[in-house]
Amino acid sequence: MSARNKWLNRVRWDENGLVPVITQEVGSNDVLMFAWMNRDALARTAELGQAVYWSRSRKKLWHKGEESGHFQQVHEIRIDCDDDVVLLKVEQVGGLACHTGRHSCFFSVLKDGVWQAVDPVLKDPESIYK
Amino acid sequence: MSARNKWLNRVRWDENGLVPVITQEVGSNDVLMFAWMNRDALARTAELGQAVYWSRSRKKLWHKGEESGHFQQVHEIRIDCDDDVVLLKVEQVGGLACHTGRHSCFFSVLKDGVWQAVDPVLKDPESIYK
Repeated sequence: MSARNKWLNRVRWDENGLVPVITQEVGSNDVLMFAWMNRDALARTAELGQAVYWSRSRKKLWHKGEESGHFQQVHEIRIDCDDDVVLLKVEQVGGLACHTGRHSCFFSVLKDGVWQAVDPVLKDPESIYK
Repeated sequence: MSARNKWLNRVRWDENGLVPVITQEVGSNDVLMFAWMNRDALARTAELGQAVYWSRSRKKLWHKGEESGHFQQVHEIRIDCDDDVVLLKVEQVGGLACHTGRHSCFFSVLKDGVWQAVDPVLKDPESIYK
C-alpha cells in the first residue's frame, strides 16, 4: 500500500470488506443512489475522480456510466462520525442516476399505505443501454 | 400482520432482517445520517411519524431523540428501485443529528489525502445528553 492511500485505513470496512456509499448530487443535494465500495473501488474513485462501486451481484468493480455514459464526476468524498459510511457528492452526467431512466433511484414514496412512483422517467431505459 | 402493513412486504430485508436507511433533511436536502431498520422499526416510524431505527450495537429499537430530545419528524418515506434501501425525509428537531453536536454525521471530507472535519460543533455533546 502506498503512503498516499493511508486515508483508506480510516474506513471501518464491514465483515465483507465493504462500506455503504450514499451518492448525492452537487447543487440540488438530491440523493441519487446508494451502493457499496470495497477498498479498491474507493481508491479508484479518488484517483479517477469518477464513482467506481463494487457490484455485489456481479462481484466486480463497477465504473458507474461505463455502459450508459452517465458517469459521476466526484466533487467531494465525505465519511461519517463512525467512519463506516461514505458520502459522495457528484455531478451526474446526463442527469440520470437510475437504471429506470429516472434522475434518482428513490422515486417511490409511501402514500396512504402504498408505495407510489412519483418521479418521472426522463429517458427510455432501452435507449440508455445500447 | 395487519393488512395496513402490507407495504412492509415490498422491502427486501437483508440476511439479518435489516434495511439501510438514509436520513435527509427536508428543505436543505442535507444528508444527516445513515442507520438501519428492521421491520418493527420501519412500522413504528410510519405509525409514530418519528424516526425509529434498529441499533445494531445495542440490539434494540432506537427512537432517535429519546435521550437528547432531538427527534426526527418524518415528512416522507421513500424506497429505491431495488426495494432494498429506505430514504427518510425529516425535520430535525434542534437541528442536530450527530452525537458529536454537529448538524450532520458527514462532517469529514477527504482533502489532500487526509480526512478533515470541516463542519462546526454547534452544541457541546455533554450538554445534549444529560
